Amino acid sequence: MNSHTHEMKAYGDIALFPGTASPELAGKIAKYLNKRLCDRDVILFPNDNLFIKLHESVRGKDVYVIQTTSRPVQQNLMELLISLQTLRLDSAARITAVVPYLCYSRSDKKDQPRVPITSRLVTDMIEVAGADRYMTLDPHAGQVQGFFSIPGDVLTAYHTIVEYIKENLLDNLTDPVVMAVDLGFAKKARNYAEALNTPIAFVEKRRVGNDSKAEALTVIGDIKGRDVIIVDDEVDTGGSISQAIKLAREEGARNVYLAFIHPVFSSNAATRLASLDLTEIITTDTVPIPEASLALFGDRIHICSVAPLLSEVIIRAHEGRSVGELFDE
Amino acid sequence: MNSHTHEMKAYGDIALFPGTASPELAGKIAKYLNKRLCDRDVILFPNDNLFIKLHESVRGKDVYVIQTTSRPVQQNLMELLISLQTLRLDSAARITAVVPYLCYSRSDKKDQPRVPITSRLVTDMIEVAGADRYMTLDPHAGQVQGFFSIPGDVLTAYHTIVEYIKENLLDNLTDPVVMAVDLGFAKKARNYAEALNTPIAFVEKRRVGNDSKAEALTVIGDIKGRDVIIVDDEVDTGGSISQAIKLAREEGARNVYLAFIHPVFSSNAATRLASLDLTEIITTDTVPIPEASLALFGDRIHICSVAPLLSEVIIRAHEGRSVGELFDE
Amino acid sequence: MNSHTHEMKAYGDIALFPGTASPELAGKIAKYLNKRLCDRDVILFPNDNLFIKLHESVRGKDVYVIQTTSRPVQQNLMELLISLQTLRLDSAARITAVVPYLCYSRSDKKDQPRVPITSRLVTDMIEVAGADRYMTLDPHAGQVQGFFSIPGDVLTAYHTIVEYIKENLLDNLTDPVVMAVDLGFAKKARNYAEALNTPIAFVEKRRVGNDSKAEALTVIGDIKGRDVIIVDDEVDTGGSISQAIKLAREEGARNVYLAFIHPVFSSNAATRLASLDLTEIITTDTVPIPEASLALFGDRIHICSVAPLLSEVIIRAHEGRSVGELFDE
Amino acid sequence: MNSHTHEMKAYGDIALFPGTASPELAGKIAKYLNKRLCDRDVILFPNDNLFIKLHESVRGKDVYVIQTTSRPVQQNLMELLISLQTLRLDSAARITAVVPYLCYSRSDKKDQPRVPITSRLVTDMIEVAGADRYMTLDPHAGQVQGFFSIPGDVLTAYHTIVEYIKENLLDNLTDPVVMAVDLGFAKKARNYAEALNTPIAFVEKRRVGNDSKAEALTVIGDIKGRDVIIVDDEVDTGGSISQAIKLAREEGARNVYLAFIHPVFSSNAATRLASLDLTEIITTDTVPIPEASLALFGDRIHICSVAPLLSEVIIRAHEGRSVGELFDE
Amino acid sequence: MNSHTHEMKAYGDIALFPGTASPELAGKIAKYLNKRLCDRDVILFPNDNLFIKLHESVRGKDVYVIQTTSRPVQQNLMELLISLQTLRLDSAARITAVVPYLCYSRSDKKDQPRVPITSRLVTDMIEVAGADRYMTLDPHAGQVQGFFSIPGDVLTAYHTIVEYIKENLLDNLTDPVVMAVDLGFAKKARNYAEALNTPIAFVEKRRVGNDSKAEALTVIGDIKGRDVIIVDDEVDTGGSISQAIKLAREEGARNVYLAFIHPVFSSNAATRLASLDLTEIITTDTVPIPEASLALFGDRIHICSVAPLLSEVIIRAHEGRSVGELFDE
Amino acid sequence: MNSHTHEMKAYGDIALFPGTASPELAGKIAKYLNKRLCDRDVILFPNDNLFIKLHESVRGKDVYVIQTTSRPVQQNLMELLISLQTLRLDSAARITAVVPYLCYSRSDKKDQPRVPITSRLVTDMIEVAGADRYMTLDPHAGQVQGFFSIPGDVLTAYHTIVEYIKENLLDNLTDPVVMAVDLGFAKKARNYAEALNTPIAFVEKRRVGNDSKAEALTVIGDIKGRDVIIVDDEVDTGGSISQAIKLAREEGARNVYLAFIHPVFSSNAATRLASLDLTEIITTDTVPIPEASLALFGDRIHICSVAPLLSEVIIRAHEGRSVGELFDE
Repeated sequence: MNSHTHEMKAYGDIALFPGTASPELAGKIAKYLNKRLCDRDVILFPNDNLFIKLHESVRGKDVYVIQTTSRPVQQNLMELLISLQTLRLDSAARITAVVPYLCYSRSDKKDQPRVPITSRLVTDMIEVAGADRYMTLDPHAGQVQGFFSIPGDVLTAYHTIVEYIKENLLDNLTDPVVMAVDLGFAKKARNYAEALNTPIAFVEKRRVGNDSKAEALTVIGDIKGRDVIIVDDEVDTGGSISQAIKLAREEGARNVYLAFIHPVFSSNAATRLASLDLTEIITTDTVPIPEASLALFGDRIHICSVAPLLSEVIIRAHEGRSVGELFDE
Repeated sequence: MNSHTHEMKAYGDIALFPGTASPELAGKIAKYLNKRLCDRDVILFPNDNLFIKLHESVRGKDVYVIQTTSRPVQQNLMELLISLQTLRLDSAARITAVVPYLCYSRSDKKDQPRVPITSRLVTDMIEVAGADRYMTLDPHAGQVQGFFSIPGDVLTAYHTIVEYIKENLLDNLTDPVVMAVDLGFAKKARNYAEALNTPIAFVEKRRVGNDSKAEALTVIGDIKGRDVIIVDDEVDTGGSISQAIKLAREEGARNVYLAFIHPVFSSNAATRLASLDLTEIITTDTVPIPEASLALFGDRIHICSVAPLLSEVIIRAHEGRSVGELFDE
Repeated sequence: MNSHTHEMKAYGDIALFPGTASPELAGKIAKYLNKRLCDRDVILFPNDNLFIKLHESVRGKDVYVIQTTSRPVQQNLMELLISLQTLRLDSAARITAVVPYLCYSRSDKKDQPRVPITSRLVTDMIEVAGADRYMTLDPHAGQVQGFFSIPGDVLTAYHTIVEYIKENLLDNLTDPVVMAVDLGFAKKARNYAEALNTPIAFVEKRRVGNDSKAEALTVIGDIKGRDVIIVDDEVDTGGSISQAIKLAREEGARNVYLAFIHPVFSSNAATRLASLDLTEIITTDTVPIPEASLALFGDRIHICSVAPLLSEVIIRAHEGRSVGELFDE
Repeated sequence: MNSHTHEMKAYGDIALFPGTASPELAGKIAKYLNKRLCDRDVILFPNDNLFIKLHESVRGKDVYVIQTTSRPVQQNLMELLISLQTLRLDSAARITAVVPYLCYSRSDKKDQPRVPITSRLVTDMIEVAGADRYMTLDPHAGQVQGFFSIPGDVLTAYHTIVEYIKENLLDNLTDPVVMAVDLGFAKKARNYAEALNTPIAFVEKRRVGNDSKAEALTVIGDIKGRDVIIVDDEVDTGGSISQAIKLAREEGARNVYLAFIHPVFSSNAATRLASLDLTEIITTDTVPIPEASLALFGDRIHICSVAPLLSEVIIRAHEGRSVGELFDE
Repeated sequence: MNSHTHEMKAYGDIALFPGTASPELAGKIAKYLNKRLCDRDVILFPNDNLFIKLHESVRGKDVYVIQTTSRPVQQNLMELLISLQTLRLDSAARITAVVPYLCYSRSDKKDQPRVPITSRLVTDMIEVAGADRYMTLDPHAGQVQGFFSIPGDVLTAYHTIVEYIKENLLDNLTDPVVMAVDLGFAKKARNYAEALNTPIAFVEKRRVGNDSKAEALTVIGDIKGRDVIIVDDEVDTGGSISQAIKLAREEGARNVYLAFIHPVFSSNAATRLASLDLTEIITTDTVPIPEASLALFGDRIHICSVAPLLSEVIIRAHEGRSVGELFDE
Repeated sequence: MNSHTHEMKAYGDIALFPGTASPELAGKIAKYLNKRLCDRDVILFPNDNLFIKLHESVRGKDVYVIQTTSRPVQQNLMELLISLQTLRLDSAARITAVVPYLCYSRSDKKDQPRVPITSRLVTDMIEVAGADRYMTLDPHAGQVQGFFSIPGDVLTAYHTIVEYIKENLLDNLTDPVVMAVDLGFAKKARNYAEALNTPIAFVEKRRVGNDSKAEALTVIGDIKGRDVIIVDDEVDTGGSISQAIKLAREEGARNVYLAFIHPVFSSNAATRLASLDLTEIITTDTVPIPEASLALFGDRIHICSVAPLLSEVIIRAHEGRSVGELFDE
């Protein structure tokens, strides 16, 4: 008894639908996959209404919407949702929301009464708009996978960054130590330390007295005379990072490196970071960094593109091949 | 056999939750109902993330979120949705989204292939965020009621505007005629004409030749020497209105009045309208008009507040009394 | 990197399941597609229970249920629903409800308090019974697309009718004018007028005095001495049409033609229409017209079949090709 | 610690909404509960479209729709569904579908391939239309409770019928025996026999040879010289009953009585039953029997009304009191 | 017009995922289908938490989870559910729960107030965990099909058992009679009797006096001097069977045979059955019988494997071929 | 305008439904609230089927099911689910699942490919069974709130334990330090340290070489000569705790205390813990500790009951009062 359906698929060819929030990343994915991007209009009317029109039918296609949800967050998110609905109404066979940086993923629990869990709202919205699957990278907590009712791929750029550090930096460092700027990142920092074979240190913040605003910072672990690699998942305003670097200096650190996944860079974060005594910044392109900001760093910044990773996962998802084996898992 | 449950309710007292998009309207409703507005924080963080925190519990309450969804559309909509989720997670007994102007209601059908029905997406989002009911005024088409799976009240400011015209303008007009600027508004214009006991006229637009951009305008019906009351449901950029007024002048109209529900006023609409030869503009406060724009009109604009109408419907919804009887229906 | 899944489908071959309400249309579609119709029993038991039994398995098939929902409306609708469930329980891979005339589509909004939106109920029922997709023609309002949560194709026979008029009638008409019998149809009538390059006219109805039953009719626009093409979406009892024709005659119209999509023909509509001074009636086969009724019109009626249109859309939906390109869109 | 919410309800007063299928039963329930019936229009338009309009608001009410689903089945069912939606859209607080005879309840499993489970379709439709709860009597199989996702009360008129027989007939019977006309009713027949303290007998049907149409009937159990009480859940066309009575006579039965819940009476069932040698028929008013049919039986029929039972359950459901205690359970 | 999609499928190859409850059956199916079983870990941690890990990706596969839900019921059920979710999250294209014995299927209606319908709860859980389809054999009542919202195949081992009896036993029996131990099984027993061309008998149980515990048993029908084939759907504790056999002996039965589908064998059922005067037991492997229990019966038990039946249905479901034709239906 | 509905509720009185997993805790809650527990049967039949029967109706009640989900996990969970369904089918007005220890909450993300997120499955099951709300304490990660679609109260016994330590232990400790046994608990440990005004230390585990089984443990932070308070959220087998205590001793700790929320105590955890050099263990009654285990600890264990906390939240939830104010939030 032999089935003759081997390797067949429930949908037609891949269609790559580029959102307007991360056009460069979409372009890199298209190039990697040797596909062209779908033609479409994305228009913001004077009344602030977004409008989308496909230039070609996606009926029966296996569509990947590539749209990150960095600033302007609400507009990028709404564009993602309208895209999903438009593609669903045009009878796409399967729609995957590829969202390199998933907005609101830090609003993932009620750590005080009477506040939202906006991350769950966002996953609900993505589903109601019509996504069949999703892909994202390094959400604040892995539990966001459990917010989705649809299956998806939660990926990480951790391996990409570790690989870069191992191949380009590690040999030149003196007594390196990995340092987390927040105890909530302690476990992930341990993974970096283990992979780079370094010890580990943490910055502990504690409120001072009854004044909930004043905080005392302490370094737990030994960083004196060492090259410090600060690791984190994102840099938002860069406030904690600045404090941590200053503290590291006070505690006798040698050179300081900074590695993180999502360059959110709110407010004047880029200017602030560029002014700090950092030897090198390693990050990714899950969030596009404006040219002007990039220029501030010169060659002190290295951007590891996630395009190869997303492309490999897209082609595996399309062909029904294992994604786990990408990571030797 | 006698039931002793007369006039009981499934929830506690009314709570009025004011969004940031229409604070004045919320204030008027609170005043009309002699209730105070809920205390809450609505914060837009530097990373463009919205955050909401209630200052008091709404557990078991009958909550009304008052938030219009005019510009900035995406932000006001997202604020509405996060508010709904926050209130739901805080165990409100019933939550009603009161949205005087419901965004994207013109994107209510696929009038060409491969476009969204964003209005349905918006109703889905409002439901998934946690609304039990909704209230809105004069959506582009009444069919939007059928987009919602939850019950709600689709109200109209039509009576309010007709009443104002009858009591304040009509006696002073010479041979008044109601004119629609678009054939899609013909039926509603007829209702105005019938209520005001005037004849009716329409502007017909037609494409010229094969050039889809060029349009020829014609007035169907008799407006010569008459006072013309142009009626519409909203003024967006004001382009069609401007054309219609110019055409009316060419066709020999006497004075021109303009009545519409939603002062969306995109782009430079206010400036454009203010420069036209309009005797009086009648509209409502479903969308707040900036002070600067208002100043352009001087006393040539009259705003009929929808606060009394919304307040009456809220109290009736809360007490389980008929809303229809408000309109002698 | 090259995907080898081009043009694959999520289901097996097409299966055409004919309901009992429109057997001729189903037959024409089968012939056009060169497919046979599924064998099945549809039995109405003495207790008024409908029963359906498939004679062959549809497991894995791409099934199209062809069933219009004209009179007897409730029975035809229930047959459609039971068919959908039967096919779903028999493990069809995809089921499309092809409903040329979608019943209750005029009950699409609450235009007075305390009434249903039966059209939304009908779409909910079609979904809960198991349809994955739907196709229909010319619903009363395009917004019904937003009532469905499933994707579908809302088609129009407008092009078919316009094409017929252009090729067979237009050259012989004297100063033709398109006339709508209701202001709610004004915009669609404009499309006909634009396509046929004619002016346009409307019948306006208005209540007289306080008596809500008495109506005054007026023609807006110029029809005197012209050949009048009355256009509408359906003819139900034919009451408004009769009034409009009589009025047209009074206003000096030359010959009168009547074009509409759905020949619902309730009550004695066929007899009434046949007795009117109409030169030609153009309609479609979305609703089957009984032989006896057809005979009343002799060669004064022309039926444009929608079978080619539906067939082309079915084959495109099955093969994942664009439907929009059928209309040069 | 003491809660002061004792005996409060989640809704306002009871509203009884009468469908058109069982007006007498609705009237009896209203009388029993000392309530008036809601005013409403139920109109069947010439195009076979049903339309419902409430004359008064039910906002916040605890509404009971009383509508049986006997012939015309599709129309009565659709009227029930439209009623439910209308009441939901009018913001009723809780809606209970009271369906004394639930149509299609015999289509409750696939006993052959490629057939529907229409009973599940019906329960899905009732839920999607907006019922919060349901009540019904003696469905073909109790498992239909599991088809509903909403809670409800599946009641039985069994006790009512047993009580009637015990008080009015049993003393006058000679060696009574309960007989089931179908083995599928054997277990329920045993309950009747146990309650009436009689032995039991069954009619067994078996196909003869390879001809699936020919059936041989046998009585299993002793009925010779005894008064036979045939019991069943419904009488449809009366075919099986007629065969069973004829067979009973051949086997030497004395007088024959017939007791069943639902007088469906399809086809010429009433005429057929009236012509049989039956001493008395006991049934209920879950399905209204036309006057003309009733007249055929004279005083040989007794109708046990289910109105008191339904009324008691309605008032208990409304007041949150136990329904089970009605049956000493 | 010719479609080139003939015989394509919506998924990749078959994957057989074996649960731990019925490994032998899974093995037989794999052998029949000439497929290997998926590698996976199923671990029960010391804290009683079940954990599952797939050793290979099932992305895009057509997966069949083979897991019966006999004792330990809760653990086997939970393992099934976790397996379904794991496979869904790993992006299987289609998942079928193959549950030879579906637990709780006797809890399928509320036959008294304030009890659960656990069978519906189980079907809800299977769906929420992620099954797209299901297969099961001989649930207590066929109506359980209506509990599922997903399509599936409810199969029966009835033909398998009848075939075995016809080919191996029937010729050697003396005046055989089929006997049901419960009136609720009367109709199914009739099918056995018809297929084996024997008469039929029933055991009737009736409560004695007011003591609800005491029961009187009677045989209805003639078994004296006959070989009796007792038929049932499952043997749980074996209590009713023991009583029935004892009664049969008292009533003069010759040899007694016992045929049933599910060998649930609770408590000391195996020991009890083995001690009874039974000539042969015929059952299936929907529930695995422990070696020690099997040994008690020696060659007095015959197990008809359902593996060929399930295998044939799996391959037909996978290839989109008719399952009904397996049964000449 | 004044609403007279102040403080009304959508349901009747509180009903406390005790599961069998935590009868003592249920008893304490009943006592605190001065309510009696509902009478019900919970039966485990020989075939391993659970059965529940309420002795009294809960129609219209506000029911709280108190059932923890410790070992036997699958049985306790299934009992919870069947209870929820039974109460829903009996028409309870609102049902809250009170689950002090929520099973599988550590399986909350896919930290490797091809594994389940069982915690989300559990929340789905609780919802599908019929819970309207839930309450639980200290799940492994707060994000589990986002797994639920229903609102609920995620509580913590952290304040209770901190309060106990402050009032009973802290004054007698020498240079106390809080220590986390896992970096994943670092942030919560910081909260304990801040509340108790102590420094903090962590145990870091790291894999040794390529052997994934061998782990090296290090203490980060200063514990020499100090009283160490080890904090964690649960003790399962006690393996990590044992290692940590041994390590603490090696590093020169003075006395060691152990505080944690959930005494899961799998395997021989109680025996193992009792044999360790621990001065005092502080835990709660979210999981009942068997008498025999308790006896092992003598007076070295202190159990802070969560009954007062749960009771206060239940009464607030019932009366629609703020729960947050319990914690001065």
